[in-house]
Amino acid sequence: MDTKKLRIDGARLRASLEEMAKIGATPAGGVQRLALSDEDTRARDLFVTWLKELGLSVTIDEMGSIFGRRRGRNDSLPPVMSGSHIDSQPRGGRFDGILGVMGALEALRTLRDNGVETERPLVIVDWTNEEGSRFAPAMVASGVWAGALERDWVYARTDKDGKTQGEELARIGYRGPAPAKKWPTHAYFELHIEQGPLLERQKVTIGAPKGILCLHWYDVYLSGEANQVGPTPMEGRHDALCAAAEMILAVNRLPERMKGNLVATVGEIQNAPNSRNIIPDRVHFTVDIRSWDDAHARDAWELLKKDFTGIADERGTPFRIEETWRCPHAPFDVTLVRRVLDTAEALGYSRLHMVSGAGHDASYMNQVCPTAMIFVPSIGGRSHVEVENTSWEDCEAGANVLLHCLLETANEETR
Amino acid sequence: MDTKKLRIDGARLRASLEEMAKIGATPAGGVQRLALSDEDTRARDLFVTWLKELGLSVTIDEMGSIFGRRRGRNDSLPPVMSGSHIDSQPRGGRFDGILGVMGALEALRTLRDNGVETERPLVIVDWTNEEGSRFAPAMVASGVWAGALERDWVYARTDKDGKTQGEELARIGYRGPAPAKKWPTHAYFELHIEQGPLLERQKVTIGAPKGILCLHWYDVYLSGEANQVGPTPMEGRHDALCAAAEMILAVNRLPERMKGNLVATVGEIQNAPNSRNIIPDRVHFTVDIRSWDDAHARDAWELLKKDFTGIADERGTPFRIEETWRCPHAPFDVTLVRRVLDTAEALGYSRLHMVSGAGHDASYMNQVCPTAMIFVPSIGGRSHVEVENTSWEDCEAGANVLLHCLLETANEETR
Repeated sequence: MDTKKLRIDGARLRASLEEMAKIGATPAGGVQRLALSDEDTRARDLFVTWLKELGLSVTIDEMGSIFGRRRGRNDSLPPVMSGSHIDSQPRGGRFDGILGVMGALEALRTLRDNGVETERPLVIVDWTNEEGSRFAPAMVASGVWAGALERDWVYARTDKDGKTQGEELARIGYRGPAPAKKWPTHAYFELHIEQGPLLERQKVTIGAPKGILCLHWYDVYLSGEANQVGPTPMEGRHDALCAAAEMILAVNRLPERMKGNLVATVGEIQNAPNSRNIIPDRVHFTVDIRSWDDAHARDAWELLKKDFTGIADERGTPFRIEETWRCPHAPFDVTLVRRVLDTAEALGYSRLHMVSGAGHDASYMNQVCPTAMIFVPSIGGRSHVEVENTSWEDCEAGANVLLHCLLETANEETR
Repeated sequence: MDTKKLRIDGARLRASLEEMAKIGATPAGGVQRLALSDEDTRARDLFVTWLKELGLSVTIDEMGSIFGRRRGRNDSLPPVMSGSHIDSQPRGGRFDGILGVMGALEALRTLRDNGVETERPLVIVDWTNEEGSRFAPAMVASGVWAGALERDWVYARTDKDGKTQGEELARIGYRGPAPAKKWPTHAYFELHIEQGPLLERQKVTIGAPKGILCLHWYDVYLSGEANQVGPTPMEGRHDALCAAAEMILAVNRLPERMKGNLVATVGEIQNAPNSRNIIPDRVHFTVDIRSWDDAHARDAWELLKKDFTGIADERGTPFRIEETWRCPHAPFDVTLVRRVLDTAEALGYSRLHMVSGAGHDASYMNQVCPTAMIFVPSIGGRSHVEVENTSWEDCEAGANVLLHCLLETANEETR
């Protein structure tokens, strides 16, 4: 058959996404499937069932990542991989991550239905804990697999209740036997929602990011002196929450002070004892800095640390810092990015060359093999929220681009 | 006997305090006995046992307050009351509240041991939920008893898990049959730790506050727009945590802007979704304002609301306010305050005329009958923390002053 005419089944893709959205569904229409939670487990189980129905050979590695392998005509060639993640943010959306997994599944179902073989094997992957919201940092399973993170360090990371990631992997039955260690891979594609406003604003269906911003995560721990608020004069207070407030505003001003090419955010704060008539004495907050320029982001952090020191000295609230994670910026493979744009054009979709502000497993895969991503529009630019949405037509378009990128790349000789 | 020579038993007072400190003991030497928790219940049960051992008649009212009544020679006269509270802050100290209850108990034990009767009856009281840290506001049981708060409104107040105060009272078995309604009372004394640094700094043993500052509590709820931090430009963000940070600093600057006679504090903050890579869209924080001048405190709040409006408009983060509680400043009875000072002098203790920055049940009792308090030093001025401490000698001194204030007041004709 003329494989150029192949199209995925948009209705079936939608049905798969809707089936997955039932697992961890939230009242406001989102999903909550935190990494290694019971909801994550049920979604994994369903995914494995679907992989087996498709006749793929399923492997679980020691980080809990799930691989489904389809044989190639020349099965000893390095495979082409595609996937994303099943876990979600707290009260997150129905598309983030899962679209890339279901899109790859739909592409392989389409090949099966049409009896289409490829030269190279194809591998679908669900990477464990991409979000990093229960166990920081994010993208740990692709990070370990790529050799960028240490397995045992990742195992030892704890959630807010003190449970370790390694224990939770074992508890849910997904601490698999296969080593989490990269194997020769020909290319990696990841279909994902944009999570930003650009495609919608420019009325474009397909985005092809030239790469992903660097992503630096820090944790700041402040100490003050707790006291009953009434009898304690304002002078001589050591209020850790006031110091944190000044620091949060310093983070917010940082991009402007650095003249752009940077976003900086405090998303998380814990205050103790958190009682309305006690001066706070222990505050923890996070800092997230992203830029296309790693050195620029590090310079920004150095500037910020000076601000923090000044604030802490002024208020008598000592602090310590944990430099939790630095993922360098990932410039994708030029040929594959071009292939995404050309495929979109051939299929009649509008397209945009852009960057990704969000981190993705593609960032670590980019250290292993040539990598590219396929973005579809986020309605209102919203994501990591329950109202996150993408039209079914755009999901279908993204999966068609993925299908043809996989076909072309799995059949090419070398590049 | 010459009752002027009566002294309480310091060792027994210490033993009672130490026994109570075992209930809800925290590893760092404090106690956590939140209102209507299981720890609060066990401490109440022990207190009731001790009241009965002393031959007092015990009454539980519908707010859970515990009264132990000792007959007077002229038992139809309005009684003299004394007490404080058994509940504590989260990770609070071993003296706040419980000293006033155990001090009154020790005074009555001393009268019993020495066969001393009084003209008027004496009543010991443990007021439910003085702290207000689990269910806001504070001092609810004395407030309802004094007629300043509505019982059903107080019943309906919820904790962070959504449990109501009324249900929790019933659950622990302390929603008693007696109406929570004031009866004619001759006078009220409350022994308490200072919770501030003044007595220690001035090396004074006994403080006699001329009254309690007014206490205004507010709750602020901010809304922003949640989004993935990476792809969302700094421009056009609606970051509720940044708005809260500006507001927290405005609260902190308020006393200086109002030229003093005021303290203002944010003790509590909740941030949502509280994930490090999502822009916060829902933030709640508390404001606590106290002054000797009620109008001054209200003016300060009006100024603050203007600041809040400006900040919220600037950041596009609408807010709503709950004016949770306003307890007016309480100037104590001049004669009784003088009696505390004179009694301390007669017993050979140094003394200080001062004000109380902390709220106490004495604030509402002051609306019912002539009221005074007896303060003893807080080491380092620390309270509402696990390291809260007061020397055993000072506890003993405070209980001796209380004993003789009770004796003199319970034997006086009229005032």
